[in-house]
Amino acid sequence: MTKTRILIKKTPELVEKEVILKGWINARRDMGKISFIDLRDRSAVAQVVLVPQELGKSADLVKELRPEYIVEIKGVVKARGEKQLNKDMPTGTVEILASELKIIEKAETLPFELGSKQNLDVYLDYLPLNLRDEKNRAIFKVASEIVEGFRSHLYKEDFTEIQFPKLTAAATEGGANVFKLDYFKNKAFLGQSPQFYKQIMVGVYERVFTVGTVFRAEKHATSRHTSEYTSLDFEMGFIDSYTDIMQMLQENLRFICERLKKECSYEFKLLGATIPEVSKEIPVLKMSEAQEILDKEYGQNCSGQIDLEPEHEKLLYKWSKDKHNSDFVFVTHYPTKKRPWYTMPDPKSPEETLSFDLLFRGVEITTGGQRIHNYEMLKKNIEKFGLKSEDFSYYLQAFKFGMPPEGGIGMGFERLTSRFLGIDNIKQATLFPRDLTRIDDRLSKN
Amino acid sequence: MTKTRILIKKTPELVEKEVILKGWINARRDMGKISFIDLRDRSAVAQVVLVPQELGKSADLVKELRPEYIVEIKGVVKARGEKQLNKDMPTGTVEILASELKIIEKAETLPFELGSKQNLDVYLDYLPLNLRDEKNRAIFKVASEIVEGFRSHLYKEDFTEIQFPKLTAAATEGGANVFKLDYFKNKAFLGQSPQFYKQIMVGVYERVFTVGTVFRAEKHATSRHTSEYTSLDFEMGFIDSYTDIMQMLQENLRFICERLKKECSYEFKLLGATIPEVSKEIPVLKMSEAQEILDKEYGQNCSGQIDLEPEHEKLLYKWSKDKHNSDFVFVTHYPTKKRPWYTMPDPKSPEETLSFDLLFRGVEITTGGQRIHNYEMLKKNIEKFGLKSEDFSYYLQAFKFGMPPEGGIGMGFERLTSRFLGIDNIKQATLFPRDLTRIDDRLSKN
Repeated sequence: MTKTRILIKKTPELVEKEVILKGWINARRDMGKISFIDLRDRSAVAQVVLVPQELGKSADLVKELRPEYIVEIKGVVKARGEKQLNKDMPTGTVEILASELKIIEKAETLPFELGSKQNLDVYLDYLPLNLRDEKNRAIFKVASEIVEGFRSHLYKEDFTEIQFPKLTAAATEGGANVFKLDYFKNKAFLGQSPQFYKQIMVGVYERVFTVGTVFRAEKHATSRHTSEYTSLDFEMGFIDSYTDIMQMLQENLRFICERLKKECSYEFKLLGATIPEVSKEIPVLKMSEAQEILDKEYGQNCSGQIDLEPEHEKLLYKWSKDKHNSDFVFVTHYPTKKRPWYTMPDPKSPEETLSFDLLFRGVEITTGGQRIHNYEMLKKNIEKFGLKSEDFSYYLQAFKFGMPPEGGIGMGFERLTSRFLGIDNIKQATLFPRDLTRIDDRLSKN
Repeated sequence: MTKTRILIKKTPELVEKEVILKGWINARRDMGKISFIDLRDRSAVAQVVLVPQELGKSADLVKELRPEYIVEIKGVVKARGEKQLNKDMPTGTVEILASELKIIEKAETLPFELGSKQNLDVYLDYLPLNLRDEKNRAIFKVASEIVEGFRSHLYKEDFTEIQFPKLTAAATEGGANVFKLDYFKNKAFLGQSPQFYKQIMVGVYERVFTVGTVFRAEKHATSRHTSEYTSLDFEMGFIDSYTDIMQMLQENLRFICERLKKECSYEFKLLGATIPEVSKEIPVLKMSEAQEILDKEYGQNCSGQIDLEPEHEKLLYKWSKDKHNSDFVFVTHYPTKKRPWYTMPDPKSPEETLSFDLLFRGVEITTGGQRIHNYEMLKKNIEKFGLKSEDFSYYLQAFKFGMPPEGGIGMGFERLTSRFLGIDNIKQATLFPRDLTRIDDRLSKN
């Protein structure tokens, strides 16, 4: 068997042709002397029929075959009869009648059937195995297309990609939730955001984006928190208004969703999820307008509160769905005291900021806004927040030597993936998640 | 001034048209009453001519203009006379005669002229400013195209992109040079490589790649070491031989270099560097063959040594250039004792491995090879290296439950960028480099 391997998804186009396939055994069924295996490779799963008299010398190997064994099959692609058609399977119009079989690598007996229900701890204990299940595998295929869509759109929009450092000298965005480490003879911290670096780089390339790991020492064991996640960030200069950023984000999400439709329809179907529709214009509410709606339409008296409760975000989804048929809704003008010190206040109403959250199906997926780009104003605001501007002198150089009006956004990649797929626990949309009690293996409780 | 801004690089196509430009003042020159500014935006630099009688009310602003001021210019694009043509400048056929001028943002006086020679410490102290210089800026533009080229090729080759975790439970590839941190009630380490995770994922997607940060607590202050860098990694299953990996790497580098020719010719020219040519087949030498050549051709008796000295790598470049006109040369079959425990030994000669380094212009830029994919063999090899296989049980699941023959490569992104551009110190090809004495700001010595 030395001819070239064919990917399984190609088999429907190769009826009556001889092919060589390689892959894992997903499942095996015996009917008398005939055996059927579902063979899985990176492209698809196909049914292979093993008939002793067709297999010649390799017939003896059939009895050895077990799930996750890796095999090489030579055979002929056969069209299935009308009754055998399987519409749920991309290769459901064909099966492969094997003429030769070779075991490439054996596997030990599985501790459970692949794809079986498990509690989260067991699931994560066996993650290297569990990810092989078609559904779990689909999650990170979707993730891969989301991140590529995010980047492709921004390359198209003339952004430059940067890498940002993860070791930082200070816990810049607040001291809580930060991991600290010995750094030679000093201390260092694990960065919580690429914020400062992307802003500095606006002074260089005007439009920059970055994809990278950020860290949060979250002391809560919840379905929303992990110790590290991937942040999708862009930042753009020479904006006329914070709405330019919202516009770019909207087009970015539209681009991602178009890509998902092209590349991942099968994966969404497998996971029982619907690819989001980005409407022509995502509805926009000021915080105060949102609170008025919550009060008048849903009897939630929350005007004057500085943030939205999870329950409020869900009601705003109901509103945007009912009134605008939109999965998304922007909420702008969060109060100044709720936003970081680099956020641009609204000149017309300085207690509010030119910032926004984007809610998707009732959950915040993006935070963004215009930043303060004037050096003196930024220094003053740092002091106003009780910090020392000297501590930020490295970052402040970007502003001291001329920065245009600018702003940007950050999105948690795993949260975005989980929300798009309707996965409740972010750990299932995170490759090898870390939390209070786990770094791959469970941590001892001592 | 409310018409749409035009990017400066478009001006040569817009002769006699009115345009609006926005950007930074690179430099300013006065000739009597006329001033010239070099205006810089993300796309290019252009000469703007400021004549008082053309400027109307905004004429008074001209005297205020200083380097790094951000301005908006309305004006008409004029073809330059024959004698004024500047062939070294992409916009050298035109200049813009301004009719309106607006200062968007001011800048403080620069501590030095942008682009002036500085020692590395001063350069890094002022990095947010220094990156604005055309040459320094070109470095990270090239970097951006390298990483996008790396990924684009692998997407085309049906690889799936993964994100790997940075917090690890053990110093997996050896205890030295690892950063340690308090992780809630436990200890954690900063990962030195995505090796285990990409291998696990071969069991899921067959072909995977990842781009992400890795950490090394290097106690040496050299031009080659930083505390964190970006690793470009791919890993592929169902290989017939380790040469399949070398083939994929060769095509990947060819793809990157083709992209650089298209996107970054100007940047390479600015930096006085030549975009590498990837020859049809990169020459391949076994370690022992390389040593024979070093002995016979260059009088370096090094046969039997387990590694190549920097001097040897330089001589092999001379050899590959002279004999094969190649900037690249593969050296394979590094001794088993010089490679990590997951490296596949050559079955024909178990003291040698099916692994390789790729040398570029005399420096190693990639390490790769086939891995041990058989569970029992891998467990035994872990023990043989004096480690406990129980400590690797999470990773070993991928092999226990069936792994095809596989292998891959890792490349240091910043090293690759610096080597391609002929930059001696890796810190100049690293955005915000961290080393023994610096995390953005210089660290105090206490």
